Amino acid sequence: MVSSYSKIFEVLKKSCEIDWHQYIDHKFVKKLSDGSLSKGSFLKYLKQDYIFLYHFSRAWALAIVKSNSINEMRITSQVVNALINEEIKLHIEYCADNGIKYEDLIKTSEASQNLAYTRYVLEAGYSGSFLDLIATLSPCVFGYGEIGLKLKESHTSSKYKKWIDTYSGAEYQNLCKTLGKMVDASFFDRLGNNFERSGQWQQILKHFKTATNLEKDFWSVGFD
Amino acid sequence: MVSSYSKIFEVLKKSCEIDWHQYIDHKFVKKLSDGSLSKGSFLKYLKQDYIFLYHFSRAWALAIVKSNSINEMRITSQVVNALINEEIKLHIEYCADNGIKYEDLIKTSEASQNLAYTRYVLEAGYSGSFLDLIATLSPCVFGYGEIGLKLKESHTSSKYKKWIDTYSGAEYQNLCKTLGKMVDASFFDRLGNNFERSGQWQQILKHFKTATNLEKDFWSVGFD
Amino acid sequence: MVSSYSKIFEVLKKSCEIDWHQYIDHKFVKKLSDGSLSKGSFLKYLKQDYIFLYHFSRAWALAIVKSNSINEMRITSQVVNALINEEIKLHIEYCADNGIKYEDLIKTSEASQNLAYTRYVLEAGYSGSFLDLIATLSPCVFGYGEIGLKLKESHTSSKYKKWIDTYSGAEYQNLCKTLGKMVDASFFDRLGNNFERSGQWQQILKHFKTATNLEKDFWSVGFD
Amino acid sequence: MVSSYSKIFEVLKKSCEIDWHQYIDHKFVKKLSDGSLSKGSFLKYLKQDYIFLYHFSRAWALAIVKSNSINEMRITSQVVNALINEEIKLHIEYCADNGIKYEDLIKTSEASQNLAYTRYVLEAGYSGSFLDLIATLSPCVFGYGEIGLKLKESHTSSKYKKWIDTYSGAEYQNLCKTLGKMVDASFFDRLGNNFERSGQWQQILKHFKTATNLEKDFWSVGFD
Repeated sequence: MVSSYSKIFEVLKKSCEIDWHQYIDHKFVKKLSDGSLSKGSFLKYLKQDYIFLYHFSRAWALAIVKSNSINEMRITSQVVNALINEEIKLHIEYCADNGIKYEDLIKTSEASQNLAYTRYVLEAGYSGSFLDLIATLSPCVFGYGEIGLKLKESHTSSKYKKWIDTYSGAEYQNLCKTLGKMVDASFFDRLGNNFERSGQWQQILKHFKTATNLEKDFWSVGFD
Repeated sequence: MVSSYSKIFEVLKKSCEIDWHQYIDHKFVKKLSDGSLSKGSFLKYLKQDYIFLYHFSRAWALAIVKSNSINEMRITSQVVNALINEEIKLHIEYCADNGIKYEDLIKTSEASQNLAYTRYVLEAGYSGSFLDLIATLSPCVFGYGEIGLKLKESHTSSKYKKWIDTYSGAEYQNLCKTLGKMVDASFFDRLGNNFERSGQWQQILKHFKTATNLEKDFWSVGFD
Repeated sequence: MVSSYSKIFEVLKKSCEIDWHQYIDHKFVKKLSDGSLSKGSFLKYLKQDYIFLYHFSRAWALAIVKSNSINEMRITSQVVNALINEEIKLHIEYCADNGIKYEDLIKTSEASQNLAYTRYVLEAGYSGSFLDLIATLSPCVFGYGEIGLKLKESHTSSKYKKWIDTYSGAEYQNLCKTLGKMVDASFFDRLGNNFERSGQWQQILKHFKTATNLEKDFWSVGFD
Repeated sequence: MVSSYSKIFEVLKKSCEIDWHQYIDHKFVKKLSDGSLSKGSFLKYLKQDYIFLYHFSRAWALAIVKSNSINEMRITSQVVNALINEEIKLHIEYCADNGIKYEDLIKTSEASQNLAYTRYVLEAGYSGSFLDLIATLSPCVFGYGEIGLKLKESHTSSKYKKWIDTYSGAEYQNLCKTLGKMVDASFFDRLGNNFERSGQWQQILKHFKTATNLEKDFWSVGFD
């Protein structure tokens, strides 16, 4: 069912399968799928996700700064553009459709799960290499891609169809594919084929796993 | 009772008095004072504090990088030195005294409160200015100084006397005073006397308040 | 003749008028205007400018990371986009038109003036605040805008008309205007109206002046 | 004659032997050795070196921030300490002995070679990994160690004996040895034994070579 976006991403996922499934099969996801998620929970999530997107865009912009080639810059800046000029805009509209005014949206106070996750990603990027940053950014982007595809097939309620359509749609899926190719090229170019044998790979695995767990914890903002 | 380390610190504290008192008068602090804190809780705290000190030292080292003068470098490097070569060492010994071997200490997994707090500080420092960084570093340093002095006078049990002695002792208190002078000079030099009238001051207040709350949350690692 | 893009930019310019004129009235600029610049010199400049754009795009991406609001992110990401997806592309085409193949272009070794300038800007951004970064990024963007407008009126040869058209054209001029408004808002929001009275303003002046001189030195890559 | 501080350093040196020898056998070094260097040139160098040490200390502090272990932090903070509390102090005294007052010393304007070098190192550190940073910091530290040992044996004039004694002395040589061990451990831990086969190694070689050349260019500040 789920098409793989990248070889490296597959290796990263396999290194923490339990964590990964706790994230993509989270109660929140199941409730999006069967429509049992209350509107209140969804809106709480949406407001936090707006703040998340702000910091996440900053983290992707850091990936532009840390790029090694024009090609990496092009792809990472495409992500930044998609986040700032499309996804954030979509969130504002989406919130407006659901009765949350922009003035109120921007007053949302940041949940602790949100703060922990976004600052972890940014700090890993600042202190580490381009690869450390990409490893912490991957669970969100590819995970939402996988969830989108999964719910597209399995959803039993149309209540959150718009959300499902966004992440299963061609535009988002193509972004994941383009990004997946870049991830593979970036890792193989820098680390070579024996990448799994180095100490820095252990660090990358740790970043991926921690970010996966922080992403999993993020779902709970809807239930607080 | 509590002597003030810095004018700027006093203004920062006043801007979030409730948060500040929730931090320095936390249940954990009271239990240190009257000895009702269980050894188990204390050791949990101590192990997390070891990890905390590692990241906190990195954040103070970032303050060296962001210094504007040799004088700021001297003082911030003195703090880094005190943390890495004294406080971390003390923690290792302290843990050993309490039956926690070094091999086990370094295997401690980082509590979520720890991760959130330290990455917030580091990220504020990387993304902001020297002053943003100092504002997020202040609650810990000066707060422990205040707690030390307070417990020195009010403690009713000698169970955690060594801990109280560390933070109320001349060495730590002198560090707070030296640092307090630098904080005042750094803020007044950069922002001038009308510092409270600028947008960036709002940002600094936000950093101080958030860090105070993250520090408050940190106490709970002992009870998890 | 020259329309002002921003109030802050005008104050910055006035603080180092001599340096500013040495930059925008440089021999290289005069030779672009009267067509006396040899093709060889122009191509040397163009190749270095390609490398410059790579690092300059990274520096603008850092401004996204250091933004305080969605609005600042939108404008800075618009600049990054214009640089990576338009200006760099234009350079590649322009070089191709002049017989420099892409394979050769990317092999250009970085001139020392290029290295000094771009790393200075990036480091000022990393170590300082958003404003420090913007101050070092301004001389290039606004200076090219001023030079474009000036040469549009005064050029006596059409030899480098394409170059002049690029920077005097509506697209580039509009970017300068949009950016100028953001610069004013960013500075006044953070520093307030008495911005000139603070120590940090001295630092900002220093960054602007140094970047102006590094930009001036950059012209000489064509003559080396 | 010259004892090697580190295996990795030897590999790095061999990758750019010509550049390395242009640096350590520079005219300035020869003139220090035979005493033909004018006092004026030496003092120009010394004043620039004071500014250099300021930024170089900041770069070493960044290495603390980017450390992966307490051990790396201990050693890098030892270097920071040696630079800020000993070497900078020594420079101030040394300048005073030679009639340069502290007030004048700190007014020295930064030479372009100084700016290029220090910002390159800092930017490489911010944008890259701990290893990228260490690679750009190595030519200075180990090169001065090698020059010290070389001149100790070969100097024919005692005019600059104090300078030679500083870098050939036990204290500085021990720092090089301690650091050399850490460099080897840091590289082998992160990259494994096949470190030379990865793309990131190419980046590291480039950083080492560029820093070597910038260090070489730095000598010329004495002759400007």
